[in-house]
Amino acid sequence: MDEPLLVERRPLPIGGRLGQQLAFLIEVDRLKTVLRASTLAAVERRENDAEHSWHLALMVPVLAEYADEPIDVGHTIKLVVVHDLVEIYAGDTPLYDDALRVSQAQREAEAAERLFGLLPDDQAREFRSLWDEFEARVTPEARFAKAVDRLEPNLLNWMAGGGTWRTPGVTADTVRTRTAHIGEASAALGGAMATLIDDATRNGWVVPGQQSAAGPA
Amino acid sequence: MDEPLLVERRPLPIGGRLGQQLAFLIEVDRLKTVLRASTLAAVERRENDAEHSWHLALMVPVLAEYADEPIDVGHTIKLVVVHDLVEIYAGDTPLYDDALRVSQAQREAEAAERLFGLLPDDQAREFRSLWDEFEARVTPEARFAKAVDRLEPNLLNWMAGGGTWRTPGVTADTVRTRTAHIGEASAALGGAMATLIDDATRNGWVVPGQQSAAGPA
Repeated sequence: MDEPLLVERRPLPIGGRLGQQLAFLIEVDRLKTVLRASTLAAVERRENDAEHSWHLALMVPVLAEYADEPIDVGHTIKLVVVHDLVEIYAGDTPLYDDALRVSQAQREAEAAERLFGLLPDDQAREFRSLWDEFEARVTPEARFAKAVDRLEPNLLNWMAGGGTWRTPGVTADTVRTRTAHIGEASAALGGAMATLIDDATRNGWVVPGQQSAAGPA
Repeated sequence: MDEPLLVERRPLPIGGRLGQQLAFLIEVDRLKTVLRASTLAAVERRENDAEHSWHLALMVPVLAEYADEPIDVGHTIKLVVVHDLVEIYAGDTPLYDDALRVSQAQREAEAAERLFGLLPDDQAREFRSLWDEFEARVTPEARFAKAVDRLEPNLLNWMAGGGTWRTPGVTADTVRTRTAHIGEASAALGGAMATLIDDATRNGWVVPGQQSAAGPA
């Protein structure tokens, strides 16, 4: 968190408002280096946050018809493009890592202050507010954004024949609990997720049965 | 181009329209494996198309105020999220690689047929039309999308102290020609690009002077 900004290595020859915006846009390059727990479907390596965020940004317009409440597609895409930026300083918190999940909120709030603070004040407020909206899951757009955020890594797990579903302590019931946000935004996508979990259980890609004591929702 | 689809390795237990959409969303995972010529600012490795597309999707709302014509930000983000999908089968064509640029249109049109054809017909048309809009650069949204598409790798080149500006045959004038789309959408961003090119020339990160015979616009 105290590391120098990328632009401090090479100060931009552009000042003012645009200079602040370009410094922010250079700093966010770091999102491409934040590794997630999931592996790609296309090749055997872990996904990073920038790739994941792009994937969600495409899932939103393709799957928007399944949202149970009408959503503004453009706004929902903005939410997913921004939703993981705080992980540049706070790191990724895997869906099935309970230890890291305890400190997540505090780490991410500090990261948001630093990162969005690089922008001019009006945009710092605007982007912070997009992130807050995503996290709060009160608007239909935020609920749908969170649903695809949960669907994508679990679709990759299914393609990988297990992936992070093989984390010790995780059972099919843990996966059902952690993916419940999908059905809260879309009955159809929630149904698809249930089908994938059942299929994975039958194939031995996730342990069947009760959620373990180690894995609270 | 004739390689099996990713879902052919592991057929989805979900059919119908949603099955087609999920097969498309799995296949596009390949965009994360298409390497570009540019290197990241954050670490020493080449960028891939998914990371690049995400970066553009964030640049659009941050820089939209500089568009010389009013743009629909949500629609412009959709254009950049979709704009490189055809490279899944057609490969990346680096901005300063003239040999590859000759066959680019044909390769990409064939790729679009195959990839968008995975979607249900109405969405195949919708996404193909987004890609066509981006390529044609007739709407203000497409012009702005192309501008940030040109700005991003050249900003990374500036951060790298040269990057692909060091391609044999490329001079500062080549870079000016290849980045002219930026100023056509935004005088302010065109001005910023000119400042970066002048700075790079002074620093010896790009060869000054006339464009070489090997590098047509």
